Amino acid sequence: MNLILLFDEDFVDENIVRLSGRRLHHVRDIHRAQAGDSLVVGKINGELGVGRIVKLDKNELILEIELHSPPPAPLPLTLILALPRPRVLNRTLIAATSMGVKQIYLVHTNRVEKSFWHSPVLEEDKIRDSLVLGLEQAKDTIMPIVHLRKKFRPFMEDALPDIAKNTRKIVAHPDNLAQEIIREMQPTTLFVGPEGGFIPYEIEKLQSAGFHSFSLGERILRVETAVPVLITKLMSR
Amino acid sequence: MNLILLFDEDFVDENIVRLSGRRLHHVRDIHRAQAGDSLVVGKINGELGVGRIVKLDKNELILEIELHSPPPAPLPLTLILALPRPRVLNRTLIAATSMGVKQIYLVHTNRVEKSFWHSPVLEEDKIRDSLVLGLEQAKDTIMPIVHLRKKFRPFMEDALPDIAKNTRKIVAHPDNLAQEIIREMQPTTLFVGPEGGFIPYEIEKLQSAGFHSFSLGERILRVETAVPVLITKLMSR
Repeated sequence: MNLILLFDEDFVDENIVRLSGRRLHHVRDIHRAQAGDSLVVGKINGELGVGRIVKLDKNELILEIELHSPPPAPLPLTLILALPRPRVLNRTLIAATSMGVKQIYLVHTNRVEKSFWHSPVLEEDKIRDSLVLGLEQAKDTIMPIVHLRKKFRPFMEDALPDIAKNTRKIVAHPDNLAQEIIREMQPTTLFVGPEGGFIPYEIEKLQSAGFHSFSLGERILRVETAVPVLITKLMSR
Repeated sequence: MNLILLFDEDFVDENIVRLSGRRLHHVRDIHRAQAGDSLVVGKINGELGVGRIVKLDKNELILEIELHSPPPAPLPLTLILALPRPRVLNRTLIAATSMGVKQIYLVHTNRVEKSFWHSPVLEEDKIRDSLVLGLEQAKDTIMPIVHLRKKFRPFMEDALPDIAKNTRKIVAHPDNLAQEIIREMQPTTLFVGPEGGFIPYEIEKLQSAGFHSFSLGERILRVETAVPVLITKLMSR
């Protein structure tokens, strides 16, 4: 927790917040902070600043806050991810969020196991917990938006054209058409397939929608590793 | 498991292996393979090839194997990591291994909590389990070597000069001296600090040992994400 993220309901006065639960325990037990100390804070979808500890005990943390700086720039990249297995999803969401991704689509493809869609990790609160962890990690405040799309074909035909419009379109797929991609900070839509890869029909659909194949090479990476590596290869700073 | 890694003790004949336990269960329950199917196999520190399933039941998997291809090239990068907290260590080892790192030093620095050194995750078997998972993920066979160094100063003074000799020396540290680094496949030693960063004395020591600071930017990443991103930024393919 490199930043304490503040939500509207934390504010008891214009510049005063009262925290309990996870954030309180982190400040007490990990930061081992005391009254008078200053902590990095940020208001959700707002500015960064400092919070001076007015009171800290086992029940509550009271901070007097001053917000003064914009959060880091968002990454102009939309991530479309074939729904990964539940234990991998959280880590991938945290990693993508910490790198500044703000639009994440979790979609069904042929090789996504249908049971993954029934996992409790997809509950709104659980997803939000991962996004908050990613923001706290990267000292960011702008909450990403995660969209769930359980049907591949309607997603491809009805939604993707608008999502990817006027962006560079890349699909992580090691086929013969895979090409070098220039690393630059331009609006990009990145589609990452499931563990078993895309089926030919899906790749044909993506290619006819203007997506270019991009290969990470002969080493296959876990999705939580592949996503940061792909983002690093595509986006300069 | 994109490859089934074979060890000397698995061989019951020159080209026949008998597997049980984790690999058997994976082939039965995840791959859902059957007798006659072929699987990608690799011999530890040896070649890749195929294994044809001769027998598969709940007790054993018998494969007839043929090895014919070299494993992917190792990454000419030595990773020196301030010992991360236990729950992060495994994932970082898996990620680094999957990217081809073959020499990993886990070292003590001032801001590494001493208790981390007593964690069971540092037991030789546990570390080896993570390395095997990383190799299986990336279809590699060459086992990385993990070195534990519990004292910073002797490591810096006695060991590091030889480890880093004739390599590009990079320390991930966001200070004013941080500079752009050219992305190229040259022998590199990468030193990654602990969650709380290096203390000034450590950075001075590293700089006087020829290490250049390199910053990932204003976003702070978890070590399991930072390591793949750093490797991607430093090493071309």
